[in-house]
Amino acid sequence: MSSAGDVGERGIIEIMLRHITPMPGMPIPFWDDVMAISLGDGRAVVLNTDMLVWSTDVPRGMTYRQAARKAVVMNFSDLGAKGVRPTAFLSNLALPRDITVEAVEELARGFEEGAREYGGYVIGGDTNEAADIIISGVAIGVADEGALIKREGGKVGDVLATTGYFGDTAAAFKMLLEGYEAPKELGESILGSVYAPRARVEEGVALAEAGAATSSIDSSDGLARSLYDLSRSSGLGFRITQLPISQNARRFAEHNDLDPGALALYGGEEYELVFTVSPEKLGEARDALRKVGCTLIEIGEATEEKEIIHVEDGVSRPIEKGGWDHFKG
Amino acid sequence: MSSAGDVGERGIIEIMLRHITPMPGMPIPFWDDVMAISLGDGRAVVLNTDMLVWSTDVPRGMTYRQAARKAVVMNFSDLGAKGVRPTAFLSNLALPRDITVEAVEELARGFEEGAREYGGYVIGGDTNEAADIIISGVAIGVADEGALIKREGGKVGDVLATTGYFGDTAAAFKMLLEGYEAPKELGESILGSVYAPRARVEEGVALAEAGAATSSIDSSDGLARSLYDLSRSSGLGFRITQLPISQNARRFAEHNDLDPGALALYGGEEYELVFTVSPEKLGEARDALRKVGCTLIEIGEATEEKEIIHVEDGVSRPIEKGGWDHFKG
Repeated sequence: MSSAGDVGERGIIEIMLRHITPMPGMPIPFWDDVMAISLGDGRAVVLNTDMLVWSTDVPRGMTYRQAARKAVVMNFSDLGAKGVRPTAFLSNLALPRDITVEAVEELARGFEEGAREYGGYVIGGDTNEAADIIISGVAIGVADEGALIKREGGKVGDVLATTGYFGDTAAAFKMLLEGYEAPKELGESILGSVYAPRARVEEGVALAEAGAATSSIDSSDGLARSLYDLSRSSGLGFRITQLPISQNARRFAEHNDLDPGALALYGGEEYELVFTVSPEKLGEARDALRKVGCTLIEIGEATEEKEIIHVEDGVSRPIEKGGWDHFKG
Repeated sequence: MSSAGDVGERGIIEIMLRHITPMPGMPIPFWDDVMAISLGDGRAVVLNTDMLVWSTDVPRGMTYRQAARKAVVMNFSDLGAKGVRPTAFLSNLALPRDITVEAVEELARGFEEGAREYGGYVIGGDTNEAADIIISGVAIGVADEGALIKREGGKVGDVLATTGYFGDTAAAFKMLLEGYEAPKELGESILGSVYAPRARVEEGVALAEAGAATSSIDSSDGLARSLYDLSRSSGLGFRITQLPISQNARRFAEHNDLDPGALALYGGEEYELVFTVSPEKLGEARDALRKVGCTLIEIGEATEEKEIIHVEDGVSRPIEKGGWDHFKG
């Protein structure tokens, strides 16, 4: 008999979808990164939920406070990617009975820190006992239905862009899980990408307000996987001409004789936005991001052929999917 | 160093509260059963989150489908108690890698069944890997801020009432956890109270629409605990003249030489509403409930003395708090 491990996360979602009645008038497709409920006045409540399981998701060296803050960041990031400002966070917390009060205080500080950093508030939650620490977070925001930037909506000829460079988290996981070493002066900064990630909330809201993006996703499952998700949702392919590899990743790769492109493509838990923009709106998108202190990075274009290709020095190579599946990772 | 087990659920909530900035203009106090965000037009988004942890919350004999349905019921119940109709449910699910696809199908069926039963929809969720099955559910509804029935608001002289009789779940837990036996013809019905509970959503909405209740709570932590929570929130006491003991509980108690009153007071996971009504509105409250097929059960009155007293055959006895604490249970 097949198991969750056999069908993977997507298989489980497909099973769920087969059994449920879709809510009429949902402002965003079921497959997207967030859920939304129409308020009937042009606005929607937008929600996201993401779970952090201590034993599988929290790497060594991460503090309680950092983990709690990260639980907020990963939930806020999905709203940001849709152009929605998260106003509230709630946490459903499972704790072992013997966790210290000090640890609980640190978790509380992390929630507060994460929420306030993006202008949101912790509005409550629930507490339960379990063997492992589990933080099931929910981010909530209200936005105009028409302004939501979906996963679908990209058009052939659109510019493919990101809000930042990739590869730091992949390098960090190499250090934390496989014993790789970073050049001395880079170690802290690389590990910081995992311990203290940042969500691109202001950036997503700026893109939505400018009406400048045709589709968007956050890169929490890795850049390659994000490209596949965007491609599948919009029914197009991508031709990548410039892999957005971070300086840290380049130097880490050189130091360890690794492929820097693979670090950029297959990291995960990076919360940059990956989005498409029509060529006519590129200037506006660039300006919108600049106003919130972010540089738009062009990495390629959307193509009719439904493949994801990296072109370098005149050679075209398909980008493999890779990326993270909770059940197959 | 003190632990979560030492300070209990309430201690943990107090720690959280000390560290967070309250959201301005929240339509319902932090201490209440649900969370709410003002929509700025007189309405509020109302949310509740409750977690079901398989190893601690799911008794033997309960199916996947029943557990998933119950996860919806327990979340919808809190909204119902505030007079809010839940329109959506989302589940954040943690599953062991080796859980069968068939079990996942049954979970999906249970979510759908629970949501549709109350007119709501499953709108999505997230899936993660963990050692235990964990269902972190979220119920969402939209309601007029002014119609929310809070925990606070009861007045001295108000009638104390419930939507049903208590004790079936306590009897069921005696059977499941302590090996007690029920009279043959009652066993299935008693166990059904735990396997297939019902939320009083229509009843809560009816009370809110009639503007007939001054305060309300669901009895998921047991009747006694609910009385203490209402008492604390409104700053008053209760004089109980009629314990709402179910027929099943009476016969189970007789069969096993147990105190039927204790079964009614200290069960938990019963989802009746416990609420207060001003004497002038009692008729309206009764009518409102009758229209949705429910009988209002008067059990006592709100008093100035902040004690919770049971008066029987002319003898007054304080009701002990008891009830369920996830960390002290």
